[in-house]
Amino acid sequence: MRLNLQTDYALRLLMHLAVNGDRFSTIADIAHRYDISKNHLMKVANILAREGVIEAVRGRSGGLRLARPAETLNVGAVVRLMEADLAIVECFQGGKGECLITPACRLKGVLKEALEAFLDALDQYTINDLVARNGKLRILLGQAAA
Amino acid sequence: MRLNLQTDYALRLLMHLAVNGDRFSTIADIAHRYDISKNHLMKVANILAREGVIEAVRGRSGGLRLARPAETLNVGAVVRLMEADLAIVECFQGGKGECLITPACRLKGVLKEALEAFLDALDQYTINDLVARNGKLRILLGQAAA
Repeated sequence: MRLNLQTDYALRLLMHLAVNGDRFSTIADIAHRYDISKNHLMKVANILAREGVIEAVRGRSGGLRLARPAETLNVGAVVRLMEADLAIVECFQGGKGECLITPACRLKGVLKEALEAFLDALDQYTINDLVARNGKLRILLGQAAA
Repeated sequence: MRLNLQTDYALRLLMHLAVNGDRFSTIADIAHRYDISKNHLMKVANILAREGVIEAVRGRSGGLRLARPAETLNVGAVVRLMEADLAIVECFQGGKGECLITPACRLKGVLKEALEAFLDALDQYTINDLVARNGKLRILLGQAAA
């Protein structure tokens, strides 16, 4: 069981931007620091910008920053946003791969309950909770190169 | 976020065997009913037999059946057994892909907590809970072909 790479990158990107406050950060810098694909990160940034989570300003002095306070960015909400379908088994995807026992299957309900427990646990935290009073993280992610 | 296919198949296999009680079922029959790969199902059956969850008897009148009562087969335990590493993000795998912020990362703890909530929810159910008094399922999976 694994989160989409996009979700992982989105959470790391948001932590970086939360640490850097009003300062703009560039995709190139963030990708370099985390040693992850710039192209993948760009796709993730596009989704987050489209959804109003981050602000993307073009041009030399532009870059990315949070569009909303980190205290309002719920970790569970970010995961729901990035995990397109949360289909932990085939039958969660509408229409695809109809299973013989679907009409009588209790497992689907059990898995749904477990998935909700997973998301509920994430809902207890915001991006701010991950970065606030975390001096070590601020050193690792702070003061993005101009 | 998705369970390994092996986990999905293991749960379906165990439901089938639970419905069929002491009767042996063949991999070919189960794979055919669920319309899934016989080879993949065989691998899953090998793991479950090795772990003492199912009994595999060779020969013409042999096949697979549960090695233990379905009431004692916990859904969470089956998922833990089949999901080799439960690495929901890269840094859960020891040694691989060290992330820049690992020394200061609170996200890992948050994800671990959510994963535990997911498994705790599954721990509330046994394979028997999925099949008991489920007449429709018994019709769909019962009376395996000899």
